[in-house]
Amino acid sequence: MARKIVVIGGGAAGMTAASTARESGAGDITLITEDEHVAYSPCAIPFVVEGRIRDFPSIVMHTPEFYRRERGIEVLVKTSVDKVDAEAKKVVTKDGRIFDYDSLVIATGGTVFVPPIEGRELKGVFPIRWISDGQAVMDFLPGTKQVVVAGAGVIGLEMAIALRARGKEVTVVEMFDQVVPRIMDKDMAVLVQSHCESQGIKFVLGSPCSRIEGEDKVTGVTAGKTHIPCQMVIMATGVRANLKIPEQMGLEIGPLGAVRVSPSLQPYRKGRLLPDVYLAGDVVMCQSAVLAGPTMSQLGSTAVRQGRVAGIRAAGGSATFPGTASPYVSVIGGLHVGGTGMSRSLAEYYGVKVAEAAVKGSSRARYYPDGKEMTVKLLADAESGRLIGGQIVGGEDVTGRVNWITAAILEGVSVATFVEKMENAYCPPTSMVSDTVNAAAEKLARVLRG
Amino acid sequence: MARKIVVIGGGAAGMTAASTARESGAGDITLITEDEHVAYSPCAIPFVVEGRIRDFPSIVMHTPEFYRRERGIEVLVKTSVDKVDAEAKKVVTKDGRIFDYDSLVIATGGTVFVPPIEGRELKGVFPIRWISDGQAVMDFLPGTKQVVVAGAGVIGLEMAIALRARGKEVTVVEMFDQVVPRIMDKDMAVLVQSHCESQGIKFVLGSPCSRIEGEDKVTGVTAGKTHIPCQMVIMATGVRANLKIPEQMGLEIGPLGAVRVSPSLQPYRKGRLLPDVYLAGDVVMCQSAVLAGPTMSQLGSTAVRQGRVAGIRAAGGSATFPGTASPYVSVIGGLHVGGTGMSRSLAEYYGVKVAEAAVKGSSRARYYPDGKEMTVKLLADAESGRLIGGQIVGGEDVTGRVNWITAAILEGVSVATFVEKMENAYCPPTSMVSDTVNAAAEKLARVLRG
Repeated sequence: MARKIVVIGGGAAGMTAASTARESGAGDITLITEDEHVAYSPCAIPFVVEGRIRDFPSIVMHTPEFYRRERGIEVLVKTSVDKVDAEAKKVVTKDGRIFDYDSLVIATGGTVFVPPIEGRELKGVFPIRWISDGQAVMDFLPGTKQVVVAGAGVIGLEMAIALRARGKEVTVVEMFDQVVPRIMDKDMAVLVQSHCESQGIKFVLGSPCSRIEGEDKVTGVTAGKTHIPCQMVIMATGVRANLKIPEQMGLEIGPLGAVRVSPSLQPYRKGRLLPDVYLAGDVVMCQSAVLAGPTMSQLGSTAVRQGRVAGIRAAGGSATFPGTASPYVSVIGGLHVGGTGMSRSLAEYYGVKVAEAAVKGSSRARYYPDGKEMTVKLLADAESGRLIGGQIVGGEDVTGRVNWITAAILEGVSVATFVEKMENAYCPPTSMVSDTVNAAAEKLARVLRG
Repeated sequence: MARKIVVIGGGAAGMTAASTARESGAGDITLITEDEHVAYSPCAIPFVVEGRIRDFPSIVMHTPEFYRRERGIEVLVKTSVDKVDAEAKKVVTKDGRIFDYDSLVIATGGTVFVPPIEGRELKGVFPIRWISDGQAVMDFLPGTKQVVVAGAGVIGLEMAIALRARGKEVTVVEMFDQVVPRIMDKDMAVLVQSHCESQGIKFVLGSPCSRIEGEDKVTGVTAGKTHIPCQMVIMATGVRANLKIPEQMGLEIGPLGAVRVSPSLQPYRKGRLLPDVYLAGDVVMCQSAVLAGPTMSQLGSTAVRQGRVAGIRAAGGSATFPGTASPYVSVIGGLHVGGTGMSRSLAEYYGVKVAEAAVKGSSRARYYPDGKEMTVKLLADAESGRLIGGQIVGGEDVTGRVNWITAAILEGVSVATFVEKMENAYCPPTSMVSDTVNAAAEKLARVLRG
């Protein structure tokens, strides 16, 4: 019989799970979300602030009514779940409603982690997560001359560029001594940093934001020994999984601070899989495709891919979510920045001995006009020769190249095999005859041969 | 001891072989070419004619002197080889010089096939292969109002666009009933054709160019029942391998009309590998990565990859050229057109039962400004479910996506595995959250499931 499904969470993971469950023959589907909007991409928020996208309504793809009418999915917005009874298979909302389910999808997402520093509650401090956060920043712009962005990850840098485009003086403060820490290596990160600096953004690296000053409203930030006057602070300090419901249900939380799941996206309770419950999105700790170990993949694309698997499973079908290389791309003031698999620092943290090579090339044949500089770095496990990561900083067409490297990583290809087999579709206006990715692989093969 | 190497041919294959042999520890290297230039990409010629690239000298990357001075490679231009004595290991040029070798690389390339029709020798008929061909077309432009391009492959279409940009009335004549025949399926080719038509190009399909009219100079072309007045005819009717030297040497010519080689790029003579001789580029018939059978891969990128292997082998090292999926991209009047692996017609010709799916998406998130329409078609072996081909027509960023699909084909990935594993680096300005390639794979998986 068609299964009755409840989905908790209306982000990319939850919406995809609900839609996929519908296509997979589910019965009644109810989706419960605390947000007032569904079906939008938080990744788009900085581009709205920057003015590249017209306004916030335009990033909302569909209304709750659309889902009700077109897909038969009951969407309850601004609704909080109080608890889940996994034995009785019931979800209870804070306003006292009770929903039975055959299958439950938990896609409660994450929340911007705001470090417990003085002044974090002052007026002018904004996380960036929901449309309402973006709107609050826009509303606060008129009285703002100087902004501090706490966190130099991709969201932080995108927001820095956006606010700079709005004419603000922007300083980015980062605890690590480089931008895009953890996922990008320092030699590549300096390219991104200097591009941002060329657009007038200042950086204070190697010092976390230790204090936010002000009485009622923000007046400045202290980072290490630096004091930066500002009227706005953007918190781009990472995302933590929302664990209230999983913890109440007694689900196992993994060492990376999110719910441990099997490839079927089921959680564990007391060491055993919990039947009829599936998780997807930022709340999940999943398998790395690079190492046989856990990873966090808090990306919109991963949320969609996991949502698909959770939706099929919830409807009674079969699908699995295997390891992830977590490829990402960001466009930071016109510069395309992307990566996949492991960075050197992350691989070394896990105990992998790394070999690496970087090549500076062009996005087009050298003689073709308007080619953009493109730097490609590839990383390998120095012992097995297996490709484990790639990073690209360039002016155009980075996404497809990142996906290409990702495919090779996911298939477990060695650098030698990449050199031997991987072909490039050459055309003077779109690549060098041997693409910069191929050139980086050849250089890395020479490094590996010693 | 360091090997003495002779390379015949100064195109991408020959130059790469020579340079790679140098890096791989070769001794004396002599390269012999009939052309007056070396180290340029014939793929760039249409873009010079179009005016996107300034002039012909700018597409020549290096001079013969550069190779002599910087790489210790003796380059003899405008020099023809008369014969090769594979027993005595000697190359004899038409002007009577004799060159000993330890290893020989044959990279004699191909020549535009001009069908044996009446009028082919008239003034105003041009093949497109060498810089001198491109220059001859440019010199002939002033007296030309109407042009017929014979052949609607990518070179033909690029030349049609280029001459249209020069203000000419352009008609493309093609024997098949579609543009980009053989490598692109008709449903995708119509997108390319209508884009060309929107730029004012006319088409006569399903009729080969059967006669060129004129006394001394071209005055028109007959194709089927159509007569087209013109003062210039561009022959873009395919490339045939230059087999004079291989035939003189008694090398085995394969059923596709080029020299059969092993993965070591050695030719066969009387059923056995011929030692110390390696071939690369358009003169070669190699292995398909899609089917266990032969294929032609007359692409600049393939020439470079084969040249690399031939150069390493010639210098005494080890490398192999495995199967090829022959990915290509062309930019035709701003439209990016690419493909990899097998088209439906080619696969069916070889007896493969094909399943296919096409999806129309965007190069960016739907709400992000200036996204370009992107249509992706994927093809699978209907029996095994293995991915065997991909075709993309879109406004931007096609190259990386074609390479991504190519990597999956080369690794023998099934459509089901592609859906399950292959990740997309999502960013609103550079892709949809689930890229159009992923969407096409999902649709094809549904087709395969029936």
